[in-house]
Amino acid sequence: MAEYIFGIDVGGTTVKLGLFDIEGTVLDKWEIVTRKDNGGELVLPDIAESVKAKMAEKNIAADAVAGAGIGVPGPVDGNGVVHKAVNLGWGEKNVAGELSALLGGMKVMAGNDANVAALGEQWKGGGQGCDSIVMVTLGTGVGGGIIIDGKIVCGSTGAAGEIGHIHVQDGEPEACGCGNHGCLEQYASATGIVRLANRALAASDKDSVLRTGEVSAKTVFDAVKDGDVLACEIADSFGKYLGDGLACIAGVVNPDAFVIGGGVSKAGQVVLDYIEKYYTTNVFHGSRGVAFKLATLGNDAGIYGSAKMVI
Amino acid sequence: MAEYIFGIDVGGTTVKLGLFDIEGTVLDKWEIVTRKDNGGELVLPDIAESVKAKMAEKNIAADAVAGAGIGVPGPVDGNGVVHKAVNLGWGEKNVAGELSALLGGMKVMAGNDANVAALGEQWKGGGQGCDSIVMVTLGTGVGGGIIIDGKIVCGSTGAAGEIGHIHVQDGEPEACGCGNHGCLEQYASATGIVRLANRALAASDKDSVLRTGEVSAKTVFDAVKDGDVLACEIADSFGKYLGDGLACIAGVVNPDAFVIGGGVSKAGQVVLDYIEKYYTTNVFHGSRGVAFKLATLGNDAGIYGSAKMVI
Repeated sequence: MAEYIFGIDVGGTTVKLGLFDIEGTVLDKWEIVTRKDNGGELVLPDIAESVKAKMAEKNIAADAVAGAGIGVPGPVDGNGVVHKAVNLGWGEKNVAGELSALLGGMKVMAGNDANVAALGEQWKGGGQGCDSIVMVTLGTGVGGGIIIDGKIVCGSTGAAGEIGHIHVQDGEPEACGCGNHGCLEQYASATGIVRLANRALAASDKDSVLRTGEVSAKTVFDAVKDGDVLACEIADSFGKYLGDGLACIAGVVNPDAFVIGGGVSKAGQVVLDYIEKYYTTNVFHGSRGVAFKLATLGNDAGIYGSAKMVI
Repeated sequence: MAEYIFGIDVGGTTVKLGLFDIEGTVLDKWEIVTRKDNGGELVLPDIAESVKAKMAEKNIAADAVAGAGIGVPGPVDGNGVVHKAVNLGWGEKNVAGELSALLGGMKVMAGNDANVAALGEQWKGGGQGCDSIVMVTLGTGVGGGIIIDGKIVCGSTGAAGEIGHIHVQDGEPEACGCGNHGCLEQYASATGIVRLANRALAASDKDSVLRTGEVSAKTVFDAVKDGDVLACEIADSFGKYLGDGLACIAGVVNPDAFVIGGGVSKAGQVVLDYIEKYYTTNVFHGSRGVAFKLATLGNDAGIYGSAKMVI
């Protein structure tokens, strides 16, 4: 009788691993270094050794393990094949198949890391109790993951949930990291908020605490909480871009909830308030009741979601 | 052994019905009038009588029928309950349950008509061979349906695929039928194209064949084919709104294909060309290869998709 699941989240620096019971309670968490030498050929063997060592340490037999899930930073298709994971040095790689072979045929499910984190939040985080969520991660970029009826939407080429690259602004002179101009993440990520702030500071002569210190997503929202007028205008601009973008997404998949995570979300409810203001204005009435929630699992979302893929 | 399926598409004027074999070949098609008296209480009984009459006519036993699918004009949840179908006079109604009871316990699946038509096009129409499509119907309004891995995405309140009401333009003075301002269907539907044309004609003093006759989506695209410069500008504006909108949708669900149907699509490949021009400019590179196809089933898409729901 299978009692255990391993959840694995591969990052460019460390691999996070978790041992879960079948209900999704985390029993142990640990990390190993991501060794990227020689095109990342050691990553999966290192993971397999670590899983086997944990099984030996806890005296867990192979038939007591339901399987392992693994999230990787790249597009993954429905067969568990990653098509390119630049940060690991991988080209096309059958992650699920190779890790399974290294683990003596254990069931292994693989997914894109952002999608897997979304699944984790839907299962045990901010989206708990919702069948369908859209996870929005506001960090250096804007990441996303679409969960419908408890399952990840991968897309035909693994590019579903790439909501940071929705085009929201014509005429943007600066290029996004993807090469396009006017992508959502150019305005709604932590770096996007700094862009909006610098432009607002340059275009206005209003007094603001932001003129005297570091400009970051955190200092902008701190200033908003202190009633700084220019900071509120910057947050309003952020909310317009992201609220309109999420209204568009709701018109496509009409989720139960949006779950907002990443560094920017640490400012808390005020972030949701600015998003919802514009979301509500422009969304189709059938999606007006979609809930907005903050993510709760932080960096553990990936190991939770990886484990959930196995069930 | 079940050999037959009924596909039913309920419209405000007529109900279309089809008898299919289990492979999806249509064996017979017919229509009945939609009797909307007394809050539409006769609609389902009329359908049940028509199905039973067809079974008697063709000498089909109950156990030879795999089931019936039914598409209705309103939001339908995952349990086959419609929440409001204004055109039929229905409030909340368990369509699947009631029709099943009227048909002696036959398996009945119900869905929203636009979503069901999308499923039909994915199964036997323009999207054949694709697991995941977004159907875009350019008629009086802009309708949509999202099919992922061969299944309809309903959304939490049945409002998935409402892509006509994605907000694409700030500052639009005219209201959309939904009450919002600046919805995609205000520019990309047949009536939206007329709006764009009338505005272009008023704002320009360019000569155009459109100044001399009726302005419609058809006359605009006919003029485009004749090289009318102003008509090409109007088509370009249409393509910009719709291409950007579909690029956004691809960022969410990354389908295999967009299938374009409805009256506007009768102009053919030229419509796809104007959409793809802007789609390709602004879409995330991972979705650049999504195919654009014309719908092929016309008004039969609904009966095909209804039948497919049963399988």
